[in-house]
Amino acid sequence: MTNIKKIAVLTSGGDAPGMNAAIRSVVRTCVYHNVEVLGVYRGYQGMIENDFTPLDARSVRNLINRGGTFLKSARSKDFRTPEGRKKAYENLVAAGADALVVIGGDGSFTGALLFNQEFGFPVMGIPGTIDNDIYGTTYTLGYDTALNTVVEAIDKIRDTASSHNRMFFIEVMGRDAGFLALNSGIGGGAEKILIPEQHSTLEELVSEIEVNHNKGKMSNIIVVAEGDTTGKNVFELKKYVEKQNPDYDIRVTVLGHIQRGGAPTCFDRVLASRMGVKAVESLLEGKSNYMVGINNDKIDLTPLEKAIKGGESKLDPDLIRIAEIMSI
Amino acid sequence: MTNIKKIAVLTSGGDAPGMNAAIRSVVRTCVYHNVEVLGVYRGYQGMIENDFTPLDARSVRNLINRGGTFLKSARSKDFRTPEGRKKAYENLVAAGADALVVIGGDGSFTGALLFNQEFGFPVMGIPGTIDNDIYGTTYTLGYDTALNTVVEAIDKIRDTASSHNRMFFIEVMGRDAGFLALNSGIGGGAEKILIPEQHSTLEELVSEIEVNHNKGKMSNIIVVAEGDTTGKNVFELKKYVEKQNPDYDIRVTVLGHIQRGGAPTCFDRVLASRMGVKAVESLLEGKSNYMVGINNDKIDLTPLEKAIKGGESKLDPDLIRIAEIMSI
Amino acid sequence: MTNIKKIAVLTSGGDAPGMNAAIRSVVRTCVYHNVEVLGVYRGYQGMIENDFTPLDARSVRNLINRGGTFLKSARSKDFRTPEGRKKAYENLVAAGADALVVIGGDGSFTGALLFNQEFGFPVMGIPGTIDNDIYGTTYTLGYDTALNTVVEAIDKIRDTASSHNRMFFIEVMGRDAGFLALNSGIGGGAEKILIPEQHSTLEELVSEIEVNHNKGKMSNIIVVAEGDTTGKNVFELKKYVEKQNPDYDIRVTVLGHIQRGGAPTCFDRVLASRMGVKAVESLLEGKSNYMVGINNDKIDLTPLEKAIKGGESKLDPDLIRIAEIMSI
Amino acid sequence: MTNIKKIAVLTSGGDAPGMNAAIRSVVRTCVYHNVEVLGVYRGYQGMIENDFTPLDARSVRNLINRGGTFLKSARSKDFRTPEGRKKAYENLVAAGADALVVIGGDGSFTGALLFNQEFGFPVMGIPGTIDNDIYGTTYTLGYDTALNTVVEAIDKIRDTASSHNRMFFIEVMGRDAGFLALNSGIGGGAEKILIPEQHSTLEELVSEIEVNHNKGKMSNIIVVAEGDTTGKNVFELKKYVEKQNPDYDIRVTVLGHIQRGGAPTCFDRVLASRMGVKAVESLLEGKSNYMVGINNDKIDLTPLEKAIKGGESKLDPDLIRIAEIMSI
Repeated sequence: MTNIKKIAVLTSGGDAPGMNAAIRSVVRTCVYHNVEVLGVYRGYQGMIENDFTPLDARSVRNLINRGGTFLKSARSKDFRTPEGRKKAYENLVAAGADALVVIGGDGSFTGALLFNQEFGFPVMGIPGTIDNDIYGTTYTLGYDTALNTVVEAIDKIRDTASSHNRMFFIEVMGRDAGFLALNSGIGGGAEKILIPEQHSTLEELVSEIEVNHNKGKMSNIIVVAEGDTTGKNVFELKKYVEKQNPDYDIRVTVLGHIQRGGAPTCFDRVLASRMGVKAVESLLEGKSNYMVGINNDKIDLTPLEKAIKGGESKLDPDLIRIAEIMSI
Repeated sequence: MTNIKKIAVLTSGGDAPGMNAAIRSVVRTCVYHNVEVLGVYRGYQGMIENDFTPLDARSVRNLINRGGTFLKSARSKDFRTPEGRKKAYENLVAAGADALVVIGGDGSFTGALLFNQEFGFPVMGIPGTIDNDIYGTTYTLGYDTALNTVVEAIDKIRDTASSHNRMFFIEVMGRDAGFLALNSGIGGGAEKILIPEQHSTLEELVSEIEVNHNKGKMSNIIVVAEGDTTGKNVFELKKYVEKQNPDYDIRVTVLGHIQRGGAPTCFDRVLASRMGVKAVESLLEGKSNYMVGINNDKIDLTPLEKAIKGGESKLDPDLIRIAEIMSI
Repeated sequence: MTNIKKIAVLTSGGDAPGMNAAIRSVVRTCVYHNVEVLGVYRGYQGMIENDFTPLDARSVRNLINRGGTFLKSARSKDFRTPEGRKKAYENLVAAGADALVVIGGDGSFTGALLFNQEFGFPVMGIPGTIDNDIYGTTYTLGYDTALNTVVEAIDKIRDTASSHNRMFFIEVMGRDAGFLALNSGIGGGAEKILIPEQHSTLEELVSEIEVNHNKGKMSNIIVVAEGDTTGKNVFELKKYVEKQNPDYDIRVTVLGHIQRGGAPTCFDRVLASRMGVKAVESLLEGKSNYMVGINNDKIDLTPLEKAIKGGESKLDPDLIRIAEIMSI
Repeated sequence: MTNIKKIAVLTSGGDAPGMNAAIRSVVRTCVYHNVEVLGVYRGYQGMIENDFTPLDARSVRNLINRGGTFLKSARSKDFRTPEGRKKAYENLVAAGADALVVIGGDGSFTGALLFNQEFGFPVMGIPGTIDNDIYGTTYTLGYDTALNTVVEAIDKIRDTASSHNRMFFIEVMGRDAGFLALNSGIGGGAEKILIPEQHSTLEELVSEIEVNHNKGKMSNIIVVAEGDTTGKNVFELKKYVEKQNPDYDIRVTVLGHIQRGGAPTCFDRVLASRMGVKAVESLLEGKSNYMVGINNDKIDLTPLEKAIKGGESKLDPDLIRIAEIMSI
């Protein structure tokens, strides 16, 4: 056992459902082990600005079902400077903290690793992002919730699509990864899904739409990840496809920020609870520089360095084949 | 009592939640009164193309909770021509129909009225549109459902807005009417609501945002109806406001077609049930050329002509004042 | 204008969705009119125990979408005694309050009226209960939300009922009034609805089920208000009906307290906002002893005495007929 | 490759969300591989009664988001007799089917295995039950959806519990397994969870409630699986606990059949799609007598015999510890 007596916790980067549940878990695990907790507002910027609050078991009541993060999140330019990080370190130490849990994405983990390397301060990461694009964990916090938000939106749009025999291009988040688009597309029964990981050309798209059209499938739902490989956004795709056949009645929907919010699903709440326990207990065991993850249904640790550098995509190629079969 | 033995029913114009519930009500009321029912696919176009299906109590099972319209909807250019309408009339008569229920908006009612004037065919309208912009009824079918869809979206966006101290411009449907924007804005706790019925300038908008900012309200939600009076769309508004103060962190969301779909609320299901009964029973009493509406919590009839021509807006001016008080 | 400088607000009786939105509206309307606000915890009991908190515009942020009441609610035996009420009055006066807004049901209003009669303290009521059984308002706060909660539950149960050709007795709240059962029953497409306002015998019930059974309707949904007229609860009903025909496969669900909670619908949020404004502004105009209500789509006032005494039921008898037609 | 030309599919046992999505997947995978599909109504009973329907890609449109099973489910006493199974076999063969996919629980799999043993008919199982109590797969179809249904119910009940400082006993499904109770309890932030897998006595329960009470935690949520080890149901638990301390204000909610219904979550839809593909393609590869499962995030096969016999519980004991830490 280590001598850790007070653990600081912050959320950083884009918010994701389950972040509050993860904070709650960090806090209660600390209380369980008689360790104090320091909440840091607005991510690394709050560390620099001394924006702290003590947290106890009661301060995280009724939080497990709230989207967003009550500790707030922000980008911090200052933290990218050695002076900024030094200020942050001094504030943390002055506040009595011995270790830090960072809930966020790989950008946030890069900051955490640097912070550890410069000051030897123990850090532990919890992956929170709806994009699921972090190496070293099968699921990130917020991803399952976002999937359900997208699928509910597709269900609604399909009502209109079916009623009017219309085609819809639906843009979902995912600049670098197609997890959200591919899984919500399968879940939403999409006729076609465009993702960064699979090369698709405009010609293929047009030809598949034509095949569906000739089969009598009038109300196509086409899910498009932000980072799809056609090089066109959904509005441009609409224009391009309409030019091929003026009979097509096409609408576009950009789901946007509704994908980030909302009460977390049970999966995300339980995952957050498990990850928070692991993060705190790993610090108490003297570990540092790891990201908590879930792999093969078990909570484990991945070195932060590995999580940041990434590696081959964990997108299951068989899912792409399944999407094709389902849209027959 | 009239000699009506078979009533045709169609949905026309943009689809709205509750249309299926209204068809179900028309069908079951006919069955209750021993009248046959003819379902017309794809609105007036289906009448012209003889696209009919007989309906009975069983064919509308498990429909009350479905968004969209299983009879499908479409715009019909052909119905705007005397030849098209003649064809439609002949098909209806050949199929044995004596009367027609049209579920749709004022464009659909204009067609119905013309149809009656040319052929003396009894018609009855049921107002179905999420915009609530039909004269002669306090509520249209689908409006209450759309309000809840928008409010749920705002709730989600607020999670992110609060977490990041961001400002959001959220565009909701409503080219000519601000019902959806005003009520969902109040329900969503918006800091500002821009609607067609109330003149707002860019200067006023900027100054109010500044006031909020100075009060420490960082995460403004600004709901904008499509037809707001600034003459700018939400993307232009964002640019304009950001230029005034580069500190503002602004995002834009266009809710789009998710507003049209989804399982209808209880209110819309009950309203649809009541309106369907009234439409059929009014036809059976020999009435024609009316729209069924709800006013002062009672189902009543308004002459189609009046409903089409419209009149002063039924938007309660006191609601605008309430929105202002709530955003203090 | 009166000299009112500080208004106290409390919630009392069973909680209902929209109560938080009403508190928020009371607070913001006071701020708008430069009046202070005193929050009273746990209803009348908190008045007696001096359990107060000052409220301002910020303290009611992010509350509009929360079920329950953050001021909490409780029953108070002490307030039924003259001593208790005297204590409460002295505490209120000591805290500087000049007037009181009570959000609750008719029991709470009885207490408010007595309080006014004994001490001349201005009081105003806002009706909050999911049962909708308060005289003088077409809708109470929470009723619309509860309707949707029940309808969503029925939708889910129908999935199972249809899959197994089963019959379900679903008990919904309503000891004295059938609003919730009748409207959710219509909205949920129930085959039969039992409510206090309409006399039904066991024989009629059994015979209607038999008629449905013979028509091939196997998966009946029967919605039963707590206070239905058969004198039997849902478990007894199940036993009785099964005895008539052992072929029936019957299940029972008591929806219970899920009906009271949840994020309020847009309707309840807007209604709460409007009622809060009216309550405060009426007090400021020197009025007292009224309940705010909504009638004919307009916010108005009803003397508390009338609201408490009640009168004939406002249940629309035509709705009972509509329920019958819909279940054909 | 085998000579399989027509695959029959049925759902059996209690219905679960995702069954329709699984049928859809079986059908479309067959179409993709040019294999015909025979839908069997009402499980094994429909096989005996020759209640078949041909299915193609179009017949499973708009099904992925529907709870229940459109092929319906039923228990079949006749299928337990050799005569019944013989009849079923002859009907299947007469209808041209070469193989069978059974979507259901272990009782259904027992029937499938027997059927194969007696007639050499290729069979493949897909696990569908909200209880998640099938050996050989980490997740069963419907379990994730049920978790979210329960968590949403707990969220609602907590509104009321908090508002009134009440204690709630909430009974969730699970006679033999605590998956649903334990995970939804963690997700719902329950103060205590009673499950079959962990021995709890009444004395421990009472003492923990007392500890919470003394800590000022008034609004306890206690989630109880049907098969908990106290030997008492939730109503008896309430009585027992109330007797210990009359100050406790306890309510009981039995969630019942709402847990079985509803639109499946994205997870269940994708899982159903993947399992359907695997089931069909395994049959086409000549395999038989397996259950499709998901383990370590990969779709795989487990011999039906092993799935039926079961083995040690797959409930993660660490989750019980996490539940305790979270309720501190």
